[in-house]
Amino acid sequence: MLTRAERLTALRQALAASGVDGFLIPRSDEHLGEYVPPCGERLAWLTGFTGSAGLAIALQDRAAIFTDGRYTTQVVAETDGALWERRHLTEQPPEAWLREHAAGLKLGYDPLLHSEAFLKRFRGVDLVPLSPNPVDGIWADRPAPPAAAVLPHGLDLAGESAEAKREAVAAALRQSGEQAVLLADAHSVAWLLNLRGGDLAHTPMPLAFALVRDDASVRMFLHAPERVPEATRAHLGNRVAIEPRGHLPRALAEMAGKAVRVDPDATPIGFAAILREAGAHVMTGEDPTRLPRAAKNTTEQQGARNAHRRDAVAVANFLAWFAAEAPKAALTELSAAAHLLDCRRLVPGFVAESFPAISGAGENGAIVHYRVTEATNRPIHAHECYLIDSGGQYPDGTTDITRTLWSGPGPAPEGLRARYTAVLRGHIALGTLRFPAGVAGPHLDAIARRPLWDAGLDYDHGTGHGVGSFLSVHEGPVAFSRAAKPVPIQPGMILSNEPGYYLPGHYGIRIENLLLVRQAPAQPDQAKPFLEFETLTLAPYSRALLDPALLTPAERDWVNAYQARVLAEIGPLLDAPVRDWMAAECAPL
Amino acid sequence: MLTRAERLTALRQALAASGVDGFLIPRSDEHLGEYVPPCGERLAWLTGFTGSAGLAIALQDRAAIFTDGRYTTQVVAETDGALWERRHLTEQPPEAWLREHAAGLKLGYDPLLHSEAFLKRFRGVDLVPLSPNPVDGIWADRPAPPAAAVLPHGLDLAGESAEAKREAVAAALRQSGEQAVLLADAHSVAWLLNLRGGDLAHTPMPLAFALVRDDASVRMFLHAPERVPEATRAHLGNRVAIEPRGHLPRALAEMAGKAVRVDPDATPIGFAAILREAGAHVMTGEDPTRLPRAAKNTTEQQGARNAHRRDAVAVANFLAWFAAEAPKAALTELSAAAHLLDCRRLVPGFVAESFPAISGAGENGAIVHYRVTEATNRPIHAHECYLIDSGGQYPDGTTDITRTLWSGPGPAPEGLRARYTAVLRGHIALGTLRFPAGVAGPHLDAIARRPLWDAGLDYDHGTGHGVGSFLSVHEGPVAFSRAAKPVPIQPGMILSNEPGYYLPGHYGIRIENLLLVRQAPAQPDQAKPFLEFETLTLAPYSRALLDPALLTPAERDWVNAYQARVLAEIGPLLDAPVRDWMAAECAPL
Repeated sequence: MLTRAERLTALRQALAASGVDGFLIPRSDEHLGEYVPPCGERLAWLTGFTGSAGLAIALQDRAAIFTDGRYTTQVVAETDGALWERRHLTEQPPEAWLREHAAGLKLGYDPLLHSEAFLKRFRGVDLVPLSPNPVDGIWADRPAPPAAAVLPHGLDLAGESAEAKREAVAAALRQSGEQAVLLADAHSVAWLLNLRGGDLAHTPMPLAFALVRDDASVRMFLHAPERVPEATRAHLGNRVAIEPRGHLPRALAEMAGKAVRVDPDATPIGFAAILREAGAHVMTGEDPTRLPRAAKNTTEQQGARNAHRRDAVAVANFLAWFAAEAPKAALTELSAAAHLLDCRRLVPGFVAESFPAISGAGENGAIVHYRVTEATNRPIHAHECYLIDSGGQYPDGTTDITRTLWSGPGPAPEGLRARYTAVLRGHIALGTLRFPAGVAGPHLDAIARRPLWDAGLDYDHGTGHGVGSFLSVHEGPVAFSRAAKPVPIQPGMILSNEPGYYLPGHYGIRIENLLLVRQAPAQPDQAKPFLEFETLTLAPYSRALLDPALLTPAERDWVNAYQARVLAEIGPLLDAPVRDWMAAECAPL
Repeated sequence: MLTRAERLTALRQALAASGVDGFLIPRSDEHLGEYVPPCGERLAWLTGFTGSAGLAIALQDRAAIFTDGRYTTQVVAETDGALWERRHLTEQPPEAWLREHAAGLKLGYDPLLHSEAFLKRFRGVDLVPLSPNPVDGIWADRPAPPAAAVLPHGLDLAGESAEAKREAVAAALRQSGEQAVLLADAHSVAWLLNLRGGDLAHTPMPLAFALVRDDASVRMFLHAPERVPEATRAHLGNRVAIEPRGHLPRALAEMAGKAVRVDPDATPIGFAAILREAGAHVMTGEDPTRLPRAAKNTTEQQGARNAHRRDAVAVANFLAWFAAEAPKAALTELSAAAHLLDCRRLVPGFVAESFPAISGAGENGAIVHYRVTEATNRPIHAHECYLIDSGGQYPDGTTDITRTLWSGPGPAPEGLRARYTAVLRGHIALGTLRFPAGVAGPHLDAIARRPLWDAGLDYDHGTGHGVGSFLSVHEGPVAFSRAAKPVPIQPGMILSNEPGYYLPGHYGIRIENLLLVRQAPAQPDQAKPFLEFETLTLAPYSRALLDPALLTPAERDWVNAYQARVLAEIGPLLDAPVRDWMAAECAPL
C-alpha cells in the first residue's frame, strides 16, 4: 500500500504525464451527494481527510486542502501538514489560493465530480477536464462500486405511485417544452421510482441516474443492473428501462436535437458537455423532483410520526440508562453511542443509523461535527456535559435528534444551565413560530438565535436542515440557514430545529427536534394562509441542565405541555423503570 | 393639451412609424432613482399614474400598467381602465402578459431608462432600443430639465473630503484593474463630490452623472453646467471637470480600449452599449460608492443625531397640537399634514420634506402609500385612528418618522389597542436586537413581525429601508426586507424600523423610528463582534393606543426608558404647554 506521500507523488507524476499542472479533488462522487461509497472516497484516500465537505488542490510544488469551520480540528488530525496546507473553505477560499499560487497554470478536474454551478467560482482559471480521473489510475486497491439489492418502496410508505410521479415530471417537461430531464442526484431517482437500496451506509438507496422523458418513460442507469430483482422490475413496470451505468453517455448522445433539462447545481458538468457535443439543447432548470420530494404527502407524514414514536422508545431507553450509568463515570463516548445503537436495533423496522452518531463529552462536544473514533474516544467523566446527535432510518421515516445531558451526580453549574436554557429558548422560539406562506428558511434562522445573541453568543452552523423520507437525513432545498436559497417553506416539509452553543475547550450544547410544516388554523382577521410546525421528535429535555427561572411563563408552559405529550405518547410503550424515569424527567417544571 | 386617450393614440402612431409593435414606459428617468423631475414623468404624463413604482406597456391593440400592492387603489383612481389594463407587478408580471399578448412582436424601449438587470426579465422578447424616446416626441409641453443651483456639502457635514472619497474609489479601481467607473446614480455623484442641490422636490441633489477615473479625476455631466457657481467650482477643485449632459456619450466613446466598471442594477443599459460599441471593456461590478455612502462616518452620525433632535421639536409640537385639536373633530388629513409642515418650517436648517407626508385617517390609513390630495382629503373624525408618516431634509441629516394616533376623545377600542401594541412589540423586538457581524436585512425582517404573526396578522411591506445623509430617504443597499439582497449590516448605517398593521376599510397602524447601527459592548465569552442599534428618532408612542397589559416586563421597561429619554432630551427644547403634554405622554406606564 502506498503511503500518503507516495500517493501525492504518484498523482503529480500522472498529472505531468497528462500535461496539466494541478488537479482538483472534491469530496463528491458523480452523484454530487453528501455521502459517497468507499470507491468514491478519493479525497480521503489521497489526503486522509474523512469529513463530509472538503476540496483538495494538488499542484506540482504545493498542495492544499480546504474545509469549513466544522472540520478545523479534524483536518489537522487526519492530514499531513507537510503535504497539505490546511485552509478555511470560505475565509481562505481556493480561488484566492489559486490566484496566488497557480497563475498561468493549467488545472485539471474530473468533469463527473463537479457541478457547473461549483466550477463557476473558478472563472478565469485555465481548467482542463481529465477523464478518466488520474486518482483512479494510481488507486490500485480501489473498492468495487456498491451493488446492494434494489428494493421497492411500497405505496403504503411512499403514498404516491411512481407512475403518478413520472407523469407529473413529464407534464412539467411538456409545459416547459423540454423532451427530457437528466437526474444525477440518486435521491431524486429513488424518490421518483419509489426505490430504496443499500449502496450507502446511512442513506438507503441505490446509486443510480435517470433520464426521464416527456412521455413519462424512464431509462435508469446503475452499476450491476442484474442486482435489480424480478419483484423490483415488476414494481417498476415496463415504462422504466434498467440499464448499466456504462450506457449513460450513449443515452445522452442519443438526445441530439432534443431539449434536455439539467440542474446546474445537481449535475456533473461532464454530462451537460456530452449533451452539448451530441447536439442536444441543454436547458438550465431545477431538478423537478426536489420540491415534491421535500413536501411530504400525508402517507409520508404519518410514516414520519410513526417512525418517530418508535424511535422515541429507543431514545428514552438510552436516556434512562445514561441517567443511571453516567454518574458512575464508567462510560465512554464510544460505549454510550454503541448503547444507543443497541437500543435502536430493537426498534421494529430499524435499518441503519441515519448518519454516524456524534457522541461528544466535555470539550469534544464543542466540535460541531465531532466523530468519535478509537483514537479520539474519551471517558465521560462525572460532572460533565455530554452531547449526542443521532438518528435512525426506518422504512416509514428518517429520524434525527440531539440531546445534551449532564453526567452528574449533583447539580450542573449555573453558567452552563443559563446557556443550555438560552439554547432551549431559541429552539422553542422557532418551534412555536407561525408565519405566512412565502417565508423561507434564511428569514427564520435568526428567530432561534435571539436568546443567544442577546448574550453576545452564537453558533457557527445553520439552525436546521430538511430531512428525507427514508432517504438522506440532509435534504434540500429548504433549510433554516442564512446560506440557503430563499425557497418558500411548504406544508409537508420536515426540517430540523437545532440551535446550539459551543465553548471551545469546555463543552457543547445542542438541542434538536424534527418539525413537520402544516397549515395553521385561521385566526380573526387573518388575510392569508399561515403555516406552523408539528413537533415530530418526542424526548424529554434535560431537567438537570434547564433553569426554569430563566424561562418566560409561555416558554415554561410550552415545555410542560411538550413533556406531558412525550410522557403520554411514549410512556405507555416503555418498561416500568424507564417509564418511571421519564415521568420524573417530564414532571411539570 | 392632448387627452390621455389622444396621448396613447399618438404614441401608437409614433411606434408604427418606428417599425415597432409596442413600447415599455417605466417610471424611472435616466438616473434610475426613485424620484424623478417633472420632465421625467413620462409614465404619469401618458397614463395618469403618479405612484413611485410602475411600468406601462403599450401595444397597438391593448395596453397595460403594472403596479405593486401599495398602489392597487391609486392606479384605479388615476388611470382610465378603457385605455389601460391594471395588473399586479409581481403576481401578474409583465413577462406573462407579453407572452400572452405580444408573442412574435417587436417591443421598443428607451435604452436610457432601463438597467441591464431589469431588462433581463424580458429575455426571449424581441426588444428594440428606440432613441429618442417616442413619448418625448409627442409630449409638446414637456417641462424643461431642472437646473437648481449646485452647492457644496461642507466637510463639517460630510465628514470626509471629496478628494479622499475620490482617492478611495480610484484605489478600488486600480485594485480591480479598471480604468474608470460610470456613476449614473445621482445620489452616488452627490455623495462622492460632496455636492447638494435642488433638482428634485424631496432629495436635495443635482441630477448628474460622473465618470470617475483610476487617477481620482472626475468628469461630471449635468444639464446647464453654468448653474454651478464659482464657490462650488472652487470646492470641487481642478480634478473635477464640469461638463454639459450632452457630452456624456462622447466621453464614454473616448474610453475605447479601457476597462470601465458599470453597475448593472444602477446604470441604464444604453450607456454600456455606447461603451461596448466604442470598444471599451464593460466590467460588471457594484457602484463603489454604495457601501461607504450607506455606512455613515462619525460626522454624519452626529449630524443625524442633531437633525433628529431638532426635528423632534417639530414633531412634539405637532403631536401636542393634534392631541388638543383632534377631539374637536375639525381637522382634515390635509390640514394636519400642513400643520406638521408648518412646525418643521420653524426648525433651524429645514430644507424640505424628505417625501410627501402620508396623512391617513380611518380607512385611508390602511392604504400603505396613501397620498392625500384635494380629491381624497377627508375629515379626521372623533374616535378614529390617524397615521402620519413624514420626514425632513436638514443639511446635517434626513429624518423619517411615523406615529399612529387616536383622535379621541375617550378611549380607543380594545381590539385596536391590542393590534397597536402588537406592532409596537415588533418594533421593540427589532430595535433592541443584538446580532453578529455578517447578518443582513432579509434575515431580520421576521423579528419585527413575530408578534403579529402569532395572531395570524402581517403587513405587506418591508420592515425598514436605508436612509441617506441629507440625501434620499430611501437608500440601498441594506433593508429589513425579505426582498433585499443579503448585504451584511455595518456600523454607521441608518435604517428605518417600521412595522405596521392595516385592516382594509377600517384603519392603518405604523410605528417608525430610524436606527443607527453601532458596535455592541462585549459580553462574557463573546467570540466575535456584535452590532446593535441606537435609536435616532425621539417622539412618544401613543399612550391612548398602547395597552401596557400586553407588554412583557422587559418591553414595558424599554418603552419607559425610551420615553424618559425623549422627555429628557426634547422636553427642555419645548414651550411649557407642549412640555407638559409630553411629560404626561411619557410618564412611566
